[in-house]
Amino acid sequence: MSELIDRFLNGERRALARVITRVEAESEEGRELVRALYSRTEAAHTVGITGSAGSGKSTLTGGLAKELRARGKTVGIIAVDPSSPFTKGAILGDRIRMQDLALDPGVYVRSMAGRGALGGLAPAINDVVAVVAAFGFDYVLIETVGAGQDEVEIAGTALTTVLVNNPGTGDDIQAMKAGILEIADVLVVNKADLPGADTLASQLRALLSLSPAGERRPPILKTIAAKDEGMVELADAVDEHRQFLRESGGERKRRETNARHQLLATAQAILLEKIRQRTEGGNLESLVARIADRELDPHTAAEELIATLNLG
Amino acid sequence: MSELIDRFLNGERRALARVITRVEAESEEGRELVRALYSRTEAAHTVGITGSAGSGKSTLTGGLAKELRARGKTVGIIAVDPSSPFTKGAILGDRIRMQDLALDPGVYVRSMAGRGALGGLAPAINDVVAVVAAFGFDYVLIETVGAGQDEVEIAGTALTTVLVNNPGTGDDIQAMKAGILEIADVLVVNKADLPGADTLASQLRALLSLSPAGERRPPILKTIAAKDEGMVELADAVDEHRQFLRESGGERKRRETNARHQLLATAQAILLEKIRQRTEGGNLESLVARIADRELDPHTAAEELIATLNLG
Repeated sequence: MSELIDRFLNGERRALARVITRVEAESEEGRELVRALYSRTEAAHTVGITGSAGSGKSTLTGGLAKELRARGKTVGIIAVDPSSPFTKGAILGDRIRMQDLALDPGVYVRSMAGRGALGGLAPAINDVVAVVAAFGFDYVLIETVGAGQDEVEIAGTALTTVLVNNPGTGDDIQAMKAGILEIADVLVVNKADLPGADTLASQLRALLSLSPAGERRPPILKTIAAKDEGMVELADAVDEHRQFLRESGGERKRRETNARHQLLATAQAILLEKIRQRTEGGNLESLVARIADRELDPHTAAEELIATLNLG
Repeated sequence: MSELIDRFLNGERRALARVITRVEAESEEGRELVRALYSRTEAAHTVGITGSAGSGKSTLTGGLAKELRARGKTVGIIAVDPSSPFTKGAILGDRIRMQDLALDPGVYVRSMAGRGALGGLAPAINDVVAVVAAFGFDYVLIETVGAGQDEVEIAGTALTTVLVNNPGTGDDIQAMKAGILEIADVLVVNKADLPGADTLASQLRALLSLSPAGERRPPILKTIAAKDEGMVELADAVDEHRQFLRESGGERKRRETNARHQLLATAQAILLEKIRQRTEGGNLESLVARIADRELDPHTAAEELIATLNLG
């Protein structure tokens, strides 16, 4: 393993790919690799790019990466694929458009499956972000497909969150976004050549005006990612937010919020695994049957299950 | 409390509302109420209605409820509001359209906030579904706003899952849905008067054809919920799936799957709460600071945190 780490620290792409594969498997070896590399993750600026399906996130991520490259920066991209917790399958969709970027030695693109067994982002995503950051990229872009919960969780991973919106996607998308707006640092109206782009931008502006006075208002950018329009402004907005975080002391606060989120999520996953190990086949299944028969409610059953852990 | 339960069992709406409020608060009293009523939850058929924002789920839920009422059945509706984990706020949107239903004594409508602190559906949703079922409604409809993870989680609560789609919502929505299709028991193309409805239906059919031979293929229905079109067929499809579950032995299997999901989710929530209580202020915050400083990786920190639980 120390040879693998040496090659990783030497900048070998193959070593990075191998490290990610082991980290993704959530094996003990993967965890040791994260442990060994974690102190090197601080320099990278992590950017979450999120929004509804079909909003053009992949194209926008590719466009932002090209612009950052033009500025002499290196970029790691983690494209989180939608996948079912049942099959762990992954669908690539239009990620294929990013392939030309993959030929640039200053860019690294990696897809990964997005779902953990009990829902939410796969626990390994934070670890994959960490090792890509540790490899030494200036920026790590994390693109997630899906709207809603994932968008909130990605905010637990990235320093800057870019929320991608589209014109003409229905009335109550605005309502849905209201909660999500709170986590957005940069708002993008992509496909801005479609009708309704100005209306959407005004609606977003109106929603933002409801946030408490004195808080930073995220900028609203209009882009046409498919034509590479607005990418300079997007890269500027990301850097401005980074600068804002540094000057306001917000970076430290955000790193702590992210750390708390990761710590508790990891602790939950470990405890669940311990419960599974200790009760496999026996107690767990008999409790499940009793809930299914309505003999026992889930709370009482959960307390019985936790009793098997013998908490001191 | 036993007086409240008596009034609940007597069919008093106010008692139901009060029970839900206590259950939603996740208080010990709420848990005792669930415990007391859980054995009565089996008769109701639970139906999850889910899909992207703007797909017309609320209108469809209202239309299905009206059709079930016309068949002499009683209906409880739980409308899960999108809300931020940060504010716990809830936005009603077009739920207001359901208000006319609320005047029907055979219908009960309740909105609730959707998010737990660490993401995912609020743990209380399963308990609220349980008490609404225990009140004696023939059907309990659970409507969730949001696409992606919520759809998967609602499958852990309902016996029948209805997935609502719309024509013309972009190419890669199909890719996104592929994982979600696995959890759908009934597929609806709503707003079927919009262009592209037949194309979407064919695409869904093509996706379904990829599922293993011998498995049940969910029906694909075209509806215009705003004009009450297709509601008879929708109610029929829900009942056909219910019948299928009974005859195939799938109902028992699904109740066990749901029970396992609820049991593990509840156990996780309890453990997280225990960790919070035992480490508040002290150990938790120092571990968070060390992760933020990159002195410690989240796995190692989580293991230290779990050590404070003194697992036997």
